[in-house]
Amino acid sequence: MILEKVNSPQDLKTLSMSELTALADEMRDVIVKKVNTTGGHFGPNLGIIEATIAMHYVFNSPVDKIVFDVSHQCYPHKILTGRKEGFTNPEKYLVYTGYTAPEESPHDLFKVGHTSTSVSLACGVAKARDLRDEKYNVIALIGDGSLTGGEALEGLNNAAVLGGNIIIIVNDNDMSIAENHGGIYDNLKLLRDTNGQAENNFFTSMGFEYHYIGEGNNVEKVIETLQKVKDTDHPVVVHLRTVKGHGCAVAEANREAFHYIMPGTLDKKDKPAVLPEDYNSITTKYILDKAAKDKNLIVVNPATPGVHGFTPDFRAKLGRQYVDTGIAEEHAVAFSSALASQGAKPILAIMTSFVQRTYDQLSQDLALNNSPLTMLVYWGGLSGADATHLGSFDMSLISNIPNIVYLAPTNKEEYLAMLDWSVEQTKYPVAIRVPFAPLTSSGVEDTTDYSKLNKSKVLEKGEEVAILGLGTFAAKAKEVKDALKNQFGINATLINPVYISGIDKELLESLKSNHSLVITLEDGILDGGFGEKVTRFYGNSEMKVLNFGGKKEFTDRVPLATLYERYHLTTELIVKDTMENLKCTLLKK
Amino acid sequence: MILEKVNSPQDLKTLSMSELTALADEMRDVIVKKVNTTGGHFGPNLGIIEATIAMHYVFNSPVDKIVFDVSHQCYPHKILTGRKEGFTNPEKYLVYTGYTAPEESPHDLFKVGHTSTSVSLACGVAKARDLRDEKYNVIALIGDGSLTGGEALEGLNNAAVLGGNIIIIVNDNDMSIAENHGGIYDNLKLLRDTNGQAENNFFTSMGFEYHYIGEGNNVEKVIETLQKVKDTDHPVVVHLRTVKGHGCAVAEANREAFHYIMPGTLDKKDKPAVLPEDYNSITTKYILDKAAKDKNLIVVNPATPGVHGFTPDFRAKLGRQYVDTGIAEEHAVAFSSALASQGAKPILAIMTSFVQRTYDQLSQDLALNNSPLTMLVYWGGLSGADATHLGSFDMSLISNIPNIVYLAPTNKEEYLAMLDWSVEQTKYPVAIRVPFAPLTSSGVEDTTDYSKLNKSKVLEKGEEVAILGLGTFAAKAKEVKDALKNQFGINATLINPVYISGIDKELLESLKSNHSLVITLEDGILDGGFGEKVTRFYGNSEMKVLNFGGKKEFTDRVPLATLYERYHLTTELIVKDTMENLKCTLLKK
Repeated sequence: MILEKVNSPQDLKTLSMSELTALADEMRDVIVKKVNTTGGHFGPNLGIIEATIAMHYVFNSPVDKIVFDVSHQCYPHKILTGRKEGFTNPEKYLVYTGYTAPEESPHDLFKVGHTSTSVSLACGVAKARDLRDEKYNVIALIGDGSLTGGEALEGLNNAAVLGGNIIIIVNDNDMSIAENHGGIYDNLKLLRDTNGQAENNFFTSMGFEYHYIGEGNNVEKVIETLQKVKDTDHPVVVHLRTVKGHGCAVAEANREAFHYIMPGTLDKKDKPAVLPEDYNSITTKYILDKAAKDKNLIVVNPATPGVHGFTPDFRAKLGRQYVDTGIAEEHAVAFSSALASQGAKPILAIMTSFVQRTYDQLSQDLALNNSPLTMLVYWGGLSGADATHLGSFDMSLISNIPNIVYLAPTNKEEYLAMLDWSVEQTKYPVAIRVPFAPLTSSGVEDTTDYSKLNKSKVLEKGEEVAILGLGTFAAKAKEVKDALKNQFGINATLINPVYISGIDKELLESLKSNHSLVITLEDGILDGGFGEKVTRFYGNSEMKVLNFGGKKEFTDRVPLATLYERYHLTTELIVKDTMENLKCTLLKK
Repeated sequence: MILEKVNSPQDLKTLSMSELTALADEMRDVIVKKVNTTGGHFGPNLGIIEATIAMHYVFNSPVDKIVFDVSHQCYPHKILTGRKEGFTNPEKYLVYTGYTAPEESPHDLFKVGHTSTSVSLACGVAKARDLRDEKYNVIALIGDGSLTGGEALEGLNNAAVLGGNIIIIVNDNDMSIAENHGGIYDNLKLLRDTNGQAENNFFTSMGFEYHYIGEGNNVEKVIETLQKVKDTDHPVVVHLRTVKGHGCAVAEANREAFHYIMPGTLDKKDKPAVLPEDYNSITTKYILDKAAKDKNLIVVNPATPGVHGFTPDFRAKLGRQYVDTGIAEEHAVAFSSALASQGAKPILAIMTSFVQRTYDQLSQDLALNNSPLTMLVYWGGLSGADATHLGSFDMSLISNIPNIVYLAPTNKEEYLAMLDWSVEQTKYPVAIRVPFAPLTSSGVEDTTDYSKLNKSKVLEKGEEVAILGLGTFAAKAKEVKDALKNQFGINATLINPVYISGIDKELLESLKSNHSLVITLEDGILDGGFGEKVTRFYGNSEMKVLNFGGKKEFTDRVPLATLYERYHLTTELIVKDTMENLKCTLLKK
């Protein structure tokens, strides 16, 4: 095993070309086995092994600085930079994160997880170097899928004129998470088809020196070109043609499905039988039914179809009523808003974490124009996710923008009723926080008129304590109510607030007559969220308010149970805090 | 006067070429006179008169849809679409907004004011048309300066493959607000220099059909080309070469200064004498002093130098220590964050309204990486501005992102101390809300240690009522205190919270002993802002809290005095609300 001898990039420098190639194969085996055990990004890492070896062979990390885009393709890099055990030793499989992490290694420059940032970050690294007249290489490794993100394009535009050394390696595997979309890809194809020789070249048009590597999964070929551009004194683009999932036949043949795999994927011979109904399946069913009847219905998605269950079959069925914008969240919001303004019925499906790309578009292109868009926000809520993919900030982000109605359904029937109301109404930009939770059902069709904005639902009338359980925390609210009843004989009022973006002032006012405490439960950070609005309402009254939710912080793969303990979000702790407050209040009475 | 006969685009269709040209000159005179009286965008409108006439001559608005980018160049369009009087009749000069406004005319599609949105919006309009199999032209008019914004580039990438009619007119006057920056401009220059014939073409590389108009201020020439592309069935870019400020010698010669002019600019023969000191001038002085001593100091600005007083002389003095990223706010944040991570000392200057472009970059590229950036946020606060340029949302946006320290200075000495602390510290991403107000001075050097996060300053100790006056509302807080004293004999405690992003829990706790009411004053919307955090802290205590600030809404050129009345932000109304609450409290005691 060559890999046994490789503990740092320095160890590569003495290997022969054939040893480097053999090393790539060893690394491939290790990554396949590890990722099939733990789950993780599969195709992107298999495709970039040879180029990573070549980068570390040619450059001198960490003196030379390599900035990874998204960094979901950093597994080979981690293996070569002292973190091999995280891939070879099953006991250490979970020690390292799936993204670059400066706290793990000086070879990692940034905590990254969103796309399209590497060129801008590399520009900053290069410019800091130039301010001090230092000399080293700064390299950005960016995938073709990431190129369409506005931040990447802004970065390229600036990188081209920054002056000084910067090497942008465009890893072109002709895929985003799913297939690519956009005019840039016509040019990448032309460049691939002409072996990089076409005169019309997106990169040289901007002023970059340009090199093409047709065999990006051949270590020697990549080394050859990187040696040419090393120590350049001006901006260079290296266009590297690789194969996503390289060396694993099933991944090469199913590039979208093998972008990210769940544990054991390679061992499963058969497709699973019929999957249970979930929020994804009821959404796609609703959409297909509706779209068949109404040609104005259109689904817009910025390059994350898998997240929403938008299978290739679903996309094909929708035909021109489905637009994948590529990784381009800003465009997706503005585009959808304009569709809505012209009488189309757009449903924009987007992940919580990537809504963050669109604050200004939500504010200016959408809310200011009051376009009746339906935006489905997926994966919202506290979670044990990586710090780069938390779903806990969306309520603060979306609900403080004027005009947007942000809804928090608590079960299947409510969700479908909200969705249909939103699609058909023509007055408001509406966002719906699709429950990131198992499907629950009330068993009864929901006939609520959601155009009565900010009208909460009183589920169970009681006294003394009122519990507002927002969206996915409705079930928790019910548990708290039951515990208060069973343990302390308190008959609390149970409320489903329904709207994240506004409070039901009339209801809140009425609670004053026979309640002394209101508690709010929300599945996200408290800062700027729903509970604070309730508290502000009661600020100058006798009503006491306790807000339960997350803290304003980045958490990194902290198990949800730990977070619930930390934030006092278990039923037990909520009841405890409630009773403590209540005793104080009763004592004073 | 030909203009007298022109009341709608239809009236153009019967005019001869020479009449159209004469009309352009008449419109120029009208715009010059009007804008010199009221202030407004000058150069951009003078440059686009001929092309606007040509567009309305060739196309059939409002059936054909024209989407303006930024829409600061829409004055000629307004003149031709029934709003002539807003430019010819001084009494009606202020009737129409300076941007497109659907409520004014069916010829205006969107409320717009931020850059780089037109292509995405036009894509939505075109796609809605195609879903219904309707036929008409959709035109986006975008300036070269706006091209570098991520949203524009995302839009172009998608427009190229959307299918169907879309005509993107790139109005290339070789200027942003100031000069352009970026690799794209190398290509625009090449295309201009080759009369559009260069093989290497940013637009055709993406798949657009491309047309070049070298004489963009010649009505006939523009008409000629637009007639060729009218009713196209695929995406087209028309590259239009115009002169910013065309036909006004002083504006042509001073394109940056005449981008936007104040009333009476053309009448002023002499430059004003030495300007009084303000927050801009003390900032630029600080920067020049510091940069001369420290080569790691660098100023980053996304294309708005004039807003910050970054004159051409200032920029020249900083040399490589100044980077204008072009209109590219996302890149500017990521770039600056990376600079900071590598030991440089970046000061990123940005307008409140455009910070909205950067939520995700603030969160992921900056805060998650804890880079010690200094971000100066300009023009924050409630104002009588256009709905597209409000400064009231930044506190909610920035202060709910983890790790970012957001500071609200109340006077010159505090601001300079914060700025210097921020530039020299290495632990936190720091944002400072530069007071958008006349300079005030305490007369005493500020020696506060701002690394003690969230430590408020007690300015005057009192009892019963505590007043927290944040940033620019510090003076208002003092007025309220004085009024309470003078009118009611109440000796209130006066507090400068200092930090927007966190509360001083120790101080707030201590207030409980001898205060019954806390009032918070903040210069922005209440939702998600500072006051709510204070209220949440006191939610389960006996302390009453009143939050004073703006409402979550878009206001459009509503005078500040009206807003202060509406939001109860005059000293009189704050005192009135305070006393009402206090009486209730005292009655119950």
